[in-house]
Amino acid sequence: MCDLLRINTDRGVMINDGQSRFSIKGKPIYHFVGTSTFSEYTVTHVGCVAKINPAAPLDKVCVLSCGISTGFGATVNVAKPKKGQTVAIFGLGAVGLAAAEGARVSGASRIIGVDLNPSRFNEAKKFGVTEFVNPKDYDKPVQQVIAEMTNGGVDRSVECTGSVQAMISAFECVHDGWGVAVLVGVPNKDDAFKTHPMNLLNERTLKGTFFGNYKPRSDLPSVVEKYMNKEMELEKFITHAVPFSEINKAFDLMLSGESIRCIIRMDG
Amino acid sequence: MCDLLRINTDRGVMINDGQSRFSIKGKPIYHFVGTSTFSEYTVTHVGCVAKINPAAPLDKVCVLSCGISTGFGATVNVAKPKKGQTVAIFGLGAVGLAAAEGARVSGASRIIGVDLNPSRFNEAKKFGVTEFVNPKDYDKPVQQVIAEMTNGGVDRSVECTGSVQAMISAFECVHDGWGVAVLVGVPNKDDAFKTHPMNLLNERTLKGTFFGNYKPRSDLPSVVEKYMNKEMELEKFITHAVPFSEINKAFDLMLSGESIRCIIRMDG
Repeated sequence: MCDLLRINTDRGVMINDGQSRFSIKGKPIYHFVGTSTFSEYTVTHVGCVAKINPAAPLDKVCVLSCGISTGFGATVNVAKPKKGQTVAIFGLGAVGLAAAEGARVSGASRIIGVDLNPSRFNEAKKFGVTEFVNPKDYDKPVQQVIAEMTNGGVDRSVECTGSVQAMISAFECVHDGWGVAVLVGVPNKDDAFKTHPMNLLNERTLKGTFFGNYKPRSDLPSVVEKYMNKEMELEKFITHAVPFSEINKAFDLMLSGESIRCIIRMDG
Repeated sequence: MCDLLRINTDRGVMINDGQSRFSIKGKPIYHFVGTSTFSEYTVTHVGCVAKINPAAPLDKVCVLSCGISTGFGATVNVAKPKKGQTVAIFGLGAVGLAAAEGARVSGASRIIGVDLNPSRFNEAKKFGVTEFVNPKDYDKPVQQVIAEMTNGGVDRSVECTGSVQAMISAFECVHDGWGVAVLVGVPNKDDAFKTHPMNLLNERTLKGTFFGNYKPRSDLPSVVEKYMNKEMELEKFITHAVPFSEINKAFDLMLSGESIRCIIRMDG
């Protein structure tokens, strides 16, 4: 979390001289979140580069570079459910499914998936989700629905939507006394997290995480090793692969909810 | 945190039959927060009674029954500062001083006391407070003042005021990446804890606590033993003692800020 290399979408230049390393016809093209990987060659700060196992297939392990590590780490590094505990996952996109996978690997007994899109539940089963709650199906707050399903609340919740309302629900659906809620989603600039402080006094914990608390440079190589040793499956996270020339199709698939993770092939 | 015995200021009756055990001239007198100790004899639910060392002086260990255990436990059981870390304490009343004492015992290197009343600082030094910040002395938010004093924020903060604004400051003054804020104060019914969720994403933790996470019946006897073994000093928490007939004087001392903890002698 050092200030120097923190993701800064407004920066767009190299730290050393404040200049871009790309240009087209003399006009600068700016860097994107420190890596600018939508190009065949790129220039990044040494702190943004991690050396991984050279045998790792790049068209699979590339999914570890953002959402999958974030979701998986949010559960295994931050929420840390104990064997047999109950976990709620808010949002069943790629990040949420990775969070569910983390809960499954941790031995959670019940994994409750929460999403407004019921078509995601079938896919989610592969990632260990055992029950599905669609907030649209109820006329009471989803935190209350979950509390009733679980005799007072879940042991852990992981919020992977970015909706501040889901963040509040994720916090309020954990059990008094020991519940831990982890916020993963990136909120809007003007969102405020509002809850009655009494919810905190009741011995709940609220934690935030960035990149699943992995330190990219030092921790990512070991996550790649987990994949190489078959302790972690990445294939099930990949639903589509399109060539670079069809990149906009990938965005359409994502926005329609059809794709949870689409590989864009730079060789295409 | 069981529902049965949770402190319920609205209840006022015994759980068994929904009746009071006190009356005056045929009119019921209701029970107060489960113990009703402003009387020579009382009736309480067995779950509200803890058996302590019979040699313990009741006019000293009585201070463990609420604020002192709450503040001390909030630091040692919940915030858990490591040796050498920096801790901010919001509110230097009895609870905050007990929280500071917990930080001192834990080996904190800097203990920053925050209070609107500068006369409390001298007293606070006895409890390990090393620096004092009066939010009134600055025209910027106190969390910013503390961040500047500490190169980005404190490692731990403990909020002991009940002011929701202090709660927000306590949360926002901890360092990104590892900071833990603990809320102890009891908020007003209509208060909302509002913060930008980005503050959570930056890997801060927010925890609430009730009675310092001590389980009264099973844990209080060992806290009394700590006093008996001189690992914990209680005398410094007691500034005044008044007979029962002058109970209102005790409240005046408290409200004026002159008394941090006043013993009311039932034998008076």
